[in-house]
Amino acid sequence: MLTHEPTKQDIIEAHKRIKHLIYFTPIFSSRTLNSIFECKIFFKCENFQRSGSFKFRGACNAVLSLNKGEWRKGVATHSSGNHAAALALAAKLKNMNAYVVMPKTAPQIKKTAAESYGAKITYCDATIQSREETLAQVVVDTGAAFVHPYDNYSIIAGQATCAREILEEITDLDFLIAPVSGGGLISGTSLSVKYFAPRTRIIGAEPKGADDAYRSMKEGSIQPSENPQTICDGLQAQLSRRTFPIIQTNVSEIITVDDTSTITAMRMIWERMKIIVEPSAAITLGTIIENKRRFKGKRIGLILSGGNADLEKLPWQ
Amino acid sequence: MLTHEPTKQDIIEAHKRIKHLIYFTPIFSSRTLNSIFECKIFFKCENFQRSGSFKFRGACNAVLSLNKGEWRKGVATHSSGNHAAALALAAKLKNMNAYVVMPKTAPQIKKTAAESYGAKITYCDATIQSREETLAQVVVDTGAAFVHPYDNYSIIAGQATCAREILEEITDLDFLIAPVSGGGLISGTSLSVKYFAPRTRIIGAEPKGADDAYRSMKEGSIQPSENPQTICDGLQAQLSRRTFPIIQTNVSEIITVDDTSTITAMRMIWERMKIIVEPSAAITLGTIIENKRRFKGKRIGLILSGGNADLEKLPWQ
Repeated sequence: MLTHEPTKQDIIEAHKRIKHLIYFTPIFSSRTLNSIFECKIFFKCENFQRSGSFKFRGACNAVLSLNKGEWRKGVATHSSGNHAAALALAAKLKNMNAYVVMPKTAPQIKKTAAESYGAKITYCDATIQSREETLAQVVVDTGAAFVHPYDNYSIIAGQATCAREILEEITDLDFLIAPVSGGGLISGTSLSVKYFAPRTRIIGAEPKGADDAYRSMKEGSIQPSENPQTICDGLQAQLSRRTFPIIQTNVSEIITVDDTSTITAMRMIWERMKIIVEPSAAITLGTIIENKRRFKGKRIGLILSGGNADLEKLPWQ
Repeated sequence: MLTHEPTKQDIIEAHKRIKHLIYFTPIFSSRTLNSIFECKIFFKCENFQRSGSFKFRGACNAVLSLNKGEWRKGVATHSSGNHAAALALAAKLKNMNAYVVMPKTAPQIKKTAAESYGAKITYCDATIQSREETLAQVVVDTGAAFVHPYDNYSIIAGQATCAREILEEITDLDFLIAPVSGGGLISGTSLSVKYFAPRTRIIGAEPKGADDAYRSMKEGSIQPSENPQTICDGLQAQLSRRTFPIIQTNVSEIITVDDTSTITAMRMIWERMKIIVEPSAAITLGTIIENKRRFKGKRIGLILSGGNADLEKLPWQ
């Protein structure tokens, strides 16, 4: 796996490495939403990505970067959901074992997804400490290679391929907005923007109730995510040693979004675009809802990071 | 408007006429669903069509076929929902008035859609008699041209353009399956198949609780749709003088589907494909759920006719 911050060449190679496994997801636009927000929005539909989220890109790049010895012992990770399913699917496609530590509180759809791809799941408590301790034990027991959900340069290079696809298809974006959790997607995205479209500004979208990245940027050091309160179940992790410096250097700004705007955004996307996105993806449109004037007249890319919404309980019901 | 059964040339011309207004909707496939059903399914995503359903194709063709005098007085129709919204949008784009008679019981999302496109709505009771009487009065009052939701050759030619797009993109389909209500979509589809891919068999999908088309094919004459009981709110009309003969000649078979299979199909499409389809569209996959063995190994096109599902009450909740 990569041991340095991904270069332009690393991202190009990651894309080549994974392209037989991933989908090149479509970019949608909506006349209605463009007219409501008076700007031009390009939605990169990673909700259609295999395993239901962009996480599959990084997982594939990590799995395909293992050496033969590692391959035999499999991969292990902790994840609240999408990375778990993604790594399980990537491992399955390569006939490897995947050991996954998930918090008991993870949404049912994400548990089921990881299971359906054959992951061997160990449940833990919903704290970072419990995750890490449980995972350490799993790694000792199995000898599997730990693939961190975001604090891993191969993961970051894999996630960067999403923005690369956007920038190859859509030119002259004023802004590219991606959600922020542990920073794997936003750091990779910001590298792709730096290498392939340096005039585009990159913005992170983060829940107001889990604003550790916003605080970290302000303080200049990683701030903990303590007791996050948000409907965005995928955006509760905190930045890491590898993601934070990339974000600090390349991301223009973190915009925090109220859950009510995220729910409005989610419903708009479902109703107007007829596609299913999870709250952690809809938050990108939430930034525009809360800052309409600022984005007026602009060309904006939004990464709809995933579609694994719980269909049993919709947030507007 | 057309006064004869659409010819090949009529369909080609309809497509030319409307192509600056409609979306050429994408065709999706799903590895998971292909593997579950052991066949190759091509989903034509008319849920992404403008106004949220294929109905926009016919409505555009009808509106663009009016003469100048008719244009000034506007168009009128009765519809349980999707045709109303489609006609309203088509009229709006051409700066015409649209008068719409809708049953009070139509789903809220469909009422709201028609309103949002500027339709002037008159509500009626949920019977065919009430619809027709209310409409007759509206036509007398306004002088608007009546655009029947399906018993109209311009509408049929417009709906036929959907299958034409499928057959241009996907070759060698064994089956093409479309939902059946009043027969506008299935009759147009069957004509396109006859003209553009005569070896493909065309199947209609109809709710068991509203099986008038199935009975009509069996009896050889139009059977009434009396007290239909189904979750498919868009599939409750009955065949007509213009649609029935086309269907009788060109459709291989009507397959009736239990609502429970339609609900299963709808959930599968939402969960696995991350797109929103309404029950009347999901029924096409319901035919495969109920006849898995028969469709095994085949190449099957399904028309996902619309995406205007009511997000307040999901059928599996």
